[in-house]
Amino acid sequence: MAEKYLQIRLKNRPGSGSDDFWTITNDKPCALEDHQILLKMHYISLDPGMKGWMSDKKSYMPPVNLTDVMRAFGVGEVIDSRSDQFKIGQFVTGFTGAQSHAVVDARGFLRPIDPDAAPLSHYMGGLGMTGFTGYFGMTDIGRPKTGETVVVSAAAGAVGSIACQVANLSGARVVGIAGGEKKCNLLIEEFGLDAAIDYKKGPIDEALKEACPDGIDVYFDNVGGDILDAALMQMNRLARIVLCGGVSQYDDWHKAVGPANYMQIVTQSLTMRGFTMMDYSAQIPEGSAQLAQWQREGKVKFLEHIVDGLENFPAAFDTLFNGGNTGKMIIRL
Amino acid sequence: MAEKYLQIRLKNRPGSGSDDFWTITNDKPCALEDHQILLKMHYISLDPGMKGWMSDKKSYMPPVNLTDVMRAFGVGEVIDSRSDQFKIGQFVTGFTGAQSHAVVDARGFLRPIDPDAAPLSHYMGGLGMTGFTGYFGMTDIGRPKTGETVVVSAAAGAVGSIACQVANLSGARVVGIAGGEKKCNLLIEEFGLDAAIDYKKGPIDEALKEACPDGIDVYFDNVGGDILDAALMQMNRLARIVLCGGVSQYDDWHKAVGPANYMQIVTQSLTMRGFTMMDYSAQIPEGSAQLAQWQREGKVKFLEHIVDGLENFPAAFDTLFNGGNTGKMIIRL
Repeated sequence: MAEKYLQIRLKNRPGSGSDDFWTITNDKPCALEDHQILLKMHYISLDPGMKGWMSDKKSYMPPVNLTDVMRAFGVGEVIDSRSDQFKIGQFVTGFTGAQSHAVVDARGFLRPIDPDAAPLSHYMGGLGMTGFTGYFGMTDIGRPKTGETVVVSAAAGAVGSIACQVANLSGARVVGIAGGEKKCNLLIEEFGLDAAIDYKKGPIDEALKEACPDGIDVYFDNVGGDILDAALMQMNRLARIVLCGGVSQYDDWHKAVGPANYMQIVTQSLTMRGFTMMDYSAQIPEGSAQLAQWQREGKVKFLEHIVDGLENFPAAFDTLFNGGNTGKMIIRL
Repeated sequence: MAEKYLQIRLKNRPGSGSDDFWTITNDKPCALEDHQILLKMHYISLDPGMKGWMSDKKSYMPPVNLTDVMRAFGVGEVIDSRSDQFKIGQFVTGFTGAQSHAVVDARGFLRPIDPDAAPLSHYMGGLGMTGFTGYFGMTDIGRPKTGETVVVSAAAGAVGSIACQVANLSGARVVGIAGGEKKCNLLIEEFGLDAAIDYKKGPIDEALKEACPDGIDVYFDNVGGDILDAALMQMNRLARIVLCGGVSQYDDWHKAVGPANYMQIVTQSLTMRGFTMMDYSAQIPEGSAQLAQWQREGKVKFLEHIVDGLENFPAAFDTLFNGGNTGKMIIRL
């Protein structure tokens, strides 16, 4: 069977009410130019933050242009190279785009990975951007201490699952918020958290009060909306909010709703700090080594939700926003 | 004429649609108990943050009970004392309540002041809580550096006027936001700011872009609402937001609207830190000495908006929320 060249391209901006993506069958890429490499993709990462890249609202990266290949992290194997940096047969990760084959400038944001050190899919999750995001957000901004109470939203998600497990190693009381009994059981049984809140089960305010009798010292937020508002009301004086994302608001950034209770930041003298992985790019080797070690020791688990076939990218993307995934959503090609 | 004993008491919580306060004529206070002093009040402070004390929403202080004397800072003269700490004839400032005469426990939050060192009214403004709030918020949280751009909202108000003048001494470019041409002229001519924006004149987004061609590094926010949202869109990467208040949201804290653009905190890696003067109570002597020195040297000006008569407290309070005051609103008795 002939090789298929597939690409996922941006069709509409979020909030259009229509399809987000086109799936395109392409011809074989043209011959490489100097410094370019050709990658055969093995894994493509799906992340809620992609909605930000799809929006034309000012962000930390330029928006993806309509009709362009969707920006995505991926793991690929070098099958052709006109670069001194990468040889055929090597594996790399970075911004490869959502496509079956990628022609990439080797001088860009790419790093070589060792396929024998860990399963390749881990470089999309626990040893990838989402793992580092959970790790640095919790260790550098949250900085939980023994005896403190940490709350993590979307705790069964790609970033949250790392953030809550890292917090758990600090000796703090860790409470995870997730949707559904299955995910909550996982937080307790697999991750060893102190409590889990099923936000679908009842009022989040009451559940947070009950799970955090001493208030909240660190809140790691991935969701925004009602859960952020509820957490704000339980924050202790001088507590920290690690602002990682706001998945409840990603549908249309132009219609986003801010946290109504944000005045608690004043009255409780809170610090709310946002970040992206760009802030920590120099420390990736350190974070990667630490997470890999904890995973080998069984202290941190990498959960992956793998979907086969690039043609399933649009449906898998939607799953990210309806709570259908547990752990890191990854497309396997 | 016999001495009048007046009190302003809380009638309704904010958002009731009815009057906030009762003005009550009282009998002479009873004889003092041990540790109590009797103050004849000279000045009462009016502050937007009082709306927070009037609300029953969780805050940094317990809400004022309905029918109680309204909590307020004041300057009073000791006219009777059963305390070893304060003698008749001394002047003190602290939480005295909005009343013509106050019976206060001398062991509470009171500090003696020197009526010869500065006009008494200054202890309600530049040398009072609002002065310290502007000073510590800017020096400890904002920390502007030469070459950076600082924006201060409500810059002609009690806190903002101190914050923007303190920023101006750092060598940063300072832009003040205020309502009306008169206040904007004051920001440029009296305070020497680099630019002033009249938020009533046109779209705040455009005006901010124009006044801050290099983006914003420090935003000191007193107002929330549209102005905070507009500032969020102009913040530079790793910039700081000093969250001091949100006067546009004080009318009813139960219906407050959060900053819709708060996701910029993530995408630009911003730090938003809130505070109240409680955080700096140990450093008041330092802040007070510095502000007094700057004022003597003409580097910082204390603007006061003085209204005569406690019976004008309710009307003066409303003025705080319709932009009618320039500088610190103070009742003189």
